[in-house]
Amino acid sequence: MSGFAETPEPPYVAVVFTSSRTSGDGAEDGAYAATAARMEELAAQQPGYLGLESARDRLGITVSYWADEESARAWKAVAEHVVAQQRGRDTWYSDYRVRVATVTRDYGPLR
Amino acid sequence: MSGFAETPEPPYVAVVFTSSRTSGDGAEDGAYAATAARMEELAAQQPGYLGLESARDRLGITVSYWADEESARAWKAVAEHVVAQQRGRDTWYSDYRVRVATVTRDYGPLR
Repeated sequence: MSGFAETPEPPYVAVVFTSSRTSGDGAEDGAYAATAARMEELAAQQPGYLGLESARDRLGITVSYWADEESARAWKAVAEHVVAQQRGRDTWYSDYRVRVATVTRDYGPLR
Repeated sequence: MSGFAETPEPPYVAVVFTSSRTSGDGAEDGAYAATAARMEELAAQQPGYLGLESARDRLGITVSYWADEESARAWKAVAEHVVAQQRGRDTWYSDYRVRVATVTRDYGPLR
Protein backbone atom coordinates (compact mmCIF):
# COMPACT_ATOMS: atom_id res chain seq x y z
CA MET A 1 0.00 0.00 0.00
CA SER A 2 1.08 3.54 -0.78
CA GLY A 3 0.10 5.10 2.53
CA PHE A 4 -2.32 7.46 0.80
CA ALA A 5 -6.04 7.13 1.48
CA GLU A 6 -8.04 6.62 -1.70
CA THR A 7 -10.90 8.93 -0.89
CA PRO A 8 -13.93 9.61 -3.14
CA GLU A 9 -15.06 12.95 -4.53
CA PRO A 10 -15.77 15.51 -1.77
CA PRO A 11 -17.60 16.15 0.41
CA TYR A 12 -16.43 13.68 3.06
CA VAL A 13 -15.20 14.04 6.62
CA ALA A 14 -11.59 14.20 7.84
CA VAL A 15 -10.72 13.67 11.51
CA VAL A 16 -7.28 15.15 12.19
CA PHE A 17 -5.73 13.70 15.35
CA THR A 18 -2.49 15.42 16.40
CA SER A 19 -0.62 14.05 19.42
CA SER A 20 2.62 14.13 21.36
CA ARG A 21 3.72 10.92 23.08
CA THR A 22 4.83 10.68 26.68
CA SER A 23 8.41 9.45 26.99
CA GLY A 24 7.17 6.14 28.51
CA ASP A 25 9.12 2.95 29.01
CA GLY A 26 9.77 0.24 26.42
CA ALA A 27 6.84 -1.90 27.53
CA GLU A 28 4.43 0.98 27.02
CA ASP A 29 5.91 1.63 23.56
CA GLY A 30 5.10 -1.95 22.62
CA ALA A 31 1.57 -1.71 24.00
CA TYR A 32 1.05 1.59 22.21
CA ALA A 33 2.25 0.24 18.85
CA ALA A 34 0.06 -2.86 19.17
CA THR A 35 -3.00 -0.80 20.08
CA ALA A 36 -2.38 1.70 17.28
CA ALA A 37 -2.17 -1.14 14.74
CA ARG A 38 -5.32 -2.77 16.17
CA MET A 39 -7.20 0.55 16.01
CA GLU A 40 -6.26 0.98 12.32
CA GLU A 41 -7.56 -2.53 11.64
CA LEU A 42 -10.76 -1.93 13.64
CA ALA A 43 -11.41 1.49 12.08
CA ALA A 44 -11.20 -0.06 8.61
CA GLN A 45 -14.10 -2.39 9.53
CA GLN A 46 -16.47 0.45 10.50
CA PRO A 47 -19.34 1.68 8.33
CA GLY A 48 -18.40 4.84 6.44
CA TYR A 49 -14.62 4.35 6.77
CA LEU A 50 -12.81 5.73 3.72
CA GLY A 51 -9.15 5.52 4.68
CA LEU A 52 -6.40 6.68 7.00
CA GLU A 53 -3.06 8.47 6.69
CA SER A 54 -0.51 8.64 9.47
CA ALA A 55 2.97 10.03 10.21
CA ARG A 56 4.98 10.60 13.37
CA ASP A 57 8.22 12.29 14.26
CA ARG A 58 8.23 14.83 17.08
CA LEU A 59 4.47 15.13 16.62
CA GLY A 60 2.10 12.42 15.44
CA ILE A 61 -0.62 13.20 12.91
CA THR A 62 -3.27 10.66 11.96
CA VAL A 63 -6.02 11.68 9.56
CA SER A 64 -8.95 9.29 9.22
CA TYR A 65 -11.53 9.82 6.48
CA TRP A 66 -15.23 9.08 6.83
CA ALA A 67 -18.30 9.22 4.60
CA ASP A 68 -20.06 11.60 6.98
CA GLU A 69 -20.09 13.09 10.49
CA GLU A 70 -22.30 10.26 11.73
CA SER A 71 -19.81 7.53 10.83
CA ALA A 72 -16.92 9.54 12.36
CA ARG A 73 -18.91 9.93 15.60
CA ALA A 74 -19.85 6.25 15.62
CA TRP A 75 -16.17 5.25 15.40
CA LYS A 76 -15.37 7.43 18.42
CA ALA A 77 -17.99 5.47 20.40
CA VAL A 78 -16.90 1.91 19.45
CA ALA A 79 -16.25 0.16 22.79
CA GLU A 80 -12.73 -1.12 22.10
CA HIS A 81 -11.81 2.31 20.75
CA VAL A 82 -13.19 4.03 23.86
CA VAL A 83 -10.87 1.89 26.01
CA ALA A 84 -7.90 2.77 23.78
CA GLN A 85 -8.77 6.49 23.95
CA GLN A 86 -8.82 6.33 27.76
CA ARG A 87 -5.43 4.61 27.86
CA GLY A 88 -4.13 7.24 25.44
CA ARG A 89 -5.26 10.05 27.72
CA ASP A 90 -3.93 8.32 30.86
CA THR A 91 -0.63 6.94 29.62
CA TRP A 92 0.49 7.43 26.02
CA TYR A 93 -0.18 11.04 25.12
CA SER A 94 1.20 14.11 26.84
CA ASP A 95 -1.19 16.21 24.74
CA TYR A 96 -3.44 15.92 21.71
CA ARG A 97 -5.98 17.71 19.53
CA VAL A 98 -8.86 16.29 17.54
CA ARG A 99 -10.30 18.36 14.71
CA VAL A 100 -13.33 17.19 12.78
CA ALA A 101 -13.59 18.77 9.36
CA THR A 102 -15.60 18.55 6.15
CA VAL A 103 -13.41 18.21 3.06
CA THR A 104 -14.80 20.50 0.37
CA ARG A 105 -12.17 20.04 -2.36
CA ASP A 106 -9.08 17.93 -2.96
CA TYR A 107 -6.43 17.45 -5.62
CA GLY A 108 -3.17 15.71 -6.38
CA PRO A 109 -0.46 16.00 -9.05
CA LEU A 110 -2.81 14.82 -11.81
CA ARG A 111 -5.41 17.56 -11.47
CA MET B 1 7.02 25.63 20.87
CA SER B 2 4.89 22.56 21.41
CA GLY B 3 4.30 21.69 17.76
CA PHE B 4 0.55 22.06 18.19
CA ALA B 5 -1.25 24.86 16.35
CA GLU B 6 -3.18 27.12 18.72
CA THR B 7 -6.32 27.47 16.65
CA PRO B 8 -9.40 29.51 17.62
CA GLU B 9 -12.96 28.24 18.03
CA PRO B 10 -14.30 26.63 14.83
CA PRO B 11 -15.15 27.16 12.10
CA TYR B 12 -11.78 27.62 10.42
CA VAL B 13 -10.06 25.95 7.45
CA ALA B 14 -7.57 23.06 7.51
CA VAL B 15 -5.42 22.24 4.48
CA VAL B 16 -4.17 18.67 4.79
CA PHE B 17 -1.11 18.08 2.59
CA THR B 18 -0.01 14.42 2.45
CA SER B 19 3.13 13.56 0.48
CA SER B 20 5.69 10.90 -0.25
CA ARG B 21 9.24 12.02 -1.01
CA THR B 22 11.30 10.86 -3.94
CA SER B 23 14.49 9.11 -2.84
CA GLY B 24 16.61 11.99 -4.19
CA ASP B 25 20.25 12.68 -3.51
CA GLY B 26 21.72 14.44 -0.48
CA ALA B 27 21.87 17.84 -2.17
CA GLU B 28 18.13 17.69 -2.95
CA ASP B 29 17.40 16.71 0.65
CA GLY B 30 19.15 19.88 1.83
CA ALA B 31 17.30 22.04 -0.68
CA TYR B 32 14.02 20.43 0.29
CA ALA B 33 14.58 20.99 4.03
CA ALA B 34 15.59 24.62 3.47
CA THR B 35 12.56 25.28 1.29
CA ALA B 36 10.19 23.55 3.74
CA ALA B 37 11.50 25.72 6.58
CA ARG B 38 11.22 28.85 4.44
CA MET B 39 7.64 27.99 3.45
CA GLU B 40 6.66 27.58 7.13
CA GLU B 41 8.15 31.00 7.86
CA LEU B 42 6.46 32.59 4.84
CA ALA B 43 3.08 30.96 5.55
CA ALA B 44 3.15 32.40 9.07
CA GLN B 45 3.35 35.90 7.58
CA GLN B 46 0.20 35.53 5.47
CA PRO B 47 -3.17 37.08 6.33
CA GLY B 48 -5.48 34.55 7.94
CA TYR B 49 -2.72 32.12 8.95
CA LEU B 50 -3.64 30.33 12.19
CA GLY B 51 -0.92 27.71 12.58
CA LEU B 52 0.70 24.58 11.19
CA GLU B 53 1.35 21.01 12.33
CA SER B 54 3.74 18.66 10.58
CA ALA B 55 5.11 15.11 10.85
CA ARG B 56 6.98 12.81 8.51
CA ASP B 57 8.06 9.19 8.52
CA ARG B 58 7.19 7.03 5.50
CA LEU B 59 4.51 9.60 4.63
CA GLY B 60 4.62 13.32 5.34
CA ILE B 61 1.54 15.11 6.65
CA THR B 62 1.42 18.89 7.02
CA VAL B 63 -1.79 20.52 8.18
CA SER B 64 -1.98 24.30 7.86
CA TYR B 65 -4.85 26.20 9.45
CA TRP B 66 -6.46 29.31 8.00
CA ALA B 67 -9.17 31.75 9.00
CA ASP B 68 -11.17 31.04 5.85
CA GLU B 69 -11.06 29.53 2.35
CA GLU B 70 -9.97 32.84 0.87
CA SER B 71 -6.79 33.05 2.96
CA ALA B 72 -5.96 29.40 2.21
CA ARG B 73 -6.36 30.05 -1.52
CA ALA B 74 -4.29 33.24 -1.32
CA TRP B 75 -1.39 31.31 0.28
CA LYS B 76 -1.46 28.79 -2.58
CA ALA B 77 -0.98 31.73 -5.01
CA VAL B 78 1.92 33.51 -3.22
CA ALA B 79 4.70 33.73 -5.84
CA GLU B 80 7.53 32.18 -3.82
CA HIS B 81 5.17 29.38 -2.78
CA VAL B 82 4.14 28.75 -6.39
CA VAL B 83 7.83 28.22 -7.28
CA ALA B 84 8.24 25.81 -4.34
CA GLN B 85 5.10 23.88 -5.35
CA GLN B 86 6.47 23.45 -8.88
CA ARG B 87 9.80 22.16 -7.58
CA GLY B 88 7.90 19.83 -5.27
CA ARG B 89 5.97 18.36 -8.20
CA ASP B 90 9.08 18.13 -10.42
CA THR B 91 11.66 16.89 -7.94
CA TRP B 92 10.78 16.28 -4.30
CA TYR B 93 7.47 14.45 -4.22
CA SER B 94 6.69 11.11 -5.82
CA ASP B 95 3.03 11.69 -4.98
CA TYR B 96 0.83 13.97 -2.88
CA ARG B 97 -2.73 14.89 -1.97
CA VAL B 98 -4.14 18.23 -0.89
CA ARG B 99 -7.46 18.28 0.95
CA VAL B 100 -9.12 21.53 1.88
CA ALA B 101 -11.57 21.17 4.76
CA THR B 102 -13.71 23.23 7.08
CA VAL B 103 -13.17 22.35 10.74
CA THR B 104 -16.56 22.19 12.44
CA ARG B 105 -15.53 21.02 15.93
CA ASP B 106 -12.35 20.36 17.85
CA TYR B 107 -11.28 19.18 21.29
CA GLY B 108 -8.29 18.13 23.36
CA PRO B 109 -7.77 16.39 26.69
CA LEU B 110 -9.29 19.28 28.65
CA ARG B 111 -12.74 19.19 27.08
